[in-house]
Amino acid sequence: MSAGRSGRRSGSPDTRAQILDAARAGFARGGLAGTTVRSIAEAAGVDSALVHHYFGTKQQLYLAALEIPVDPEFVRAPLRDAPLDDAARALLRALLTMWDGPLRDVGVAVIRTNLGNGGDPAIVRGFLLEIALAELIGRMDAGPGDGALRANLVAAQVFGLLVARYVVGFEPLASLTVDEVVDLAAPPLQQVITGPLPN
Amino acid sequence: MSAGRSGRRSGSPDTRAQILDAARAGFARGGLAGTTVRSIAEAAGVDSALVHHYFGTKQQLYLAALEIPVDPEFVRAPLRDAPLDDAARALLRALLTMWDGPLRDVGVAVIRTNLGNGGDPAIVRGFLLEIALAELIGRMDAGPGDGALRANLVAAQVFGLLVARYVVGFEPLASLTVDEVVDLAAPPLQQVITGPLPN
Repeated sequence: MSAGRSGRRSGSPDTRAQILDAARAGFARGGLAGTTVRSIAEAAGVDSALVHHYFGTKQQLYLAALEIPVDPEFVRAPLRDAPLDDAARALLRALLTMWDGPLRDVGVAVIRTNLGNGGDPAIVRGFLLEIALAELIGRMDAGPGDGALRANLVAAQVFGLLVARYVVGFEPLASLTVDEVVDLAAPPLQQVITGPLPN
Repeated sequence: MSAGRSGRRSGSPDTRAQILDAARAGFARGGLAGTTVRSIAEAAGVDSALVHHYFGTKQQLYLAALEIPVDPEFVRAPLRDAPLDDAARALLRALLTMWDGPLRDVGVAVIRTNLGNGGDPAIVRGFLLEIALAELIGRMDAGPGDGALRANLVAAQVFGLLVARYVVGFEPLASLTVDEVVDLAAPPLQQVITGPLPN
């Protein structure tokens, strides 16, 4: 730290990094919904306008804090367009197509960094439940609270599949085509989206 | 490193650590089945007998290398005793009972360490597929190779569930009782154990 850092700053070479640090700490405590840009700006000692200047919306700040260089619309759009009865296939096809492409190494790095020691699993939780699956949760809400629980189970299955295929490399799963994996993984995933839940 | 370390040693304060290092490197390359105690002993510069003296069987050495202080029989025994049609419930009940108890912190640490940057996901693969689920694979082998593929899908679902409940802490999943989680997670897990597979 150099001198003259106290008080509100209008921008310095590492203001951006300090905002990101404050964002990670804030989101880890309060999640996406429970954390305001204002509180992050205050923790970083800057004006809210500067946060928006650097990062755009709160969701964009969240993605930057998570270091996910992926537009969540890549998953949200196919899910939004799919009938609920086909949501598992739509979700898996979008995700696996992305992970089988050039983003694979990035995806593996994001999982390993955020899940590993020193990483912050709470940020993974926010990305999956508050951004990627947010719209699906409302559509799955057949009974009170069902949607949130189903989203937990969807995220668990999807996460386990991505780790098994791309991070740990289970065989034969890792060598199958996207179509083959979608055919295998869609039925149990669809079950937690639209199947019956125990009382 | 002190002097006099070259050649075969009959034991020194850190011979045990050197065997473990050689074991991790060997298992990461060849898996449990493809790695011999002899090759590990050679890489560590000691006699095979010394490896057995310190660690017992190859499987015990594997567990020590993975730093899993859990007897895999805790999961294998209930699975062995359960009819295949009830294997999902038996597996989930054994695992969740263990993770909801005093081994929870250890389990979280094992996942975070081995999956994180610098950890070795291949060791997780060997533990799940070559030890914990090894006997189940043969029983699930309805068609040629089916058992291995089903085991991949079982391991993916179980791993995703453990991460979701214990590492990342999805709510409401993390706050449910073991019985409630077993009821929720058993049907999709049973589907990949005994349900139909696509061609």
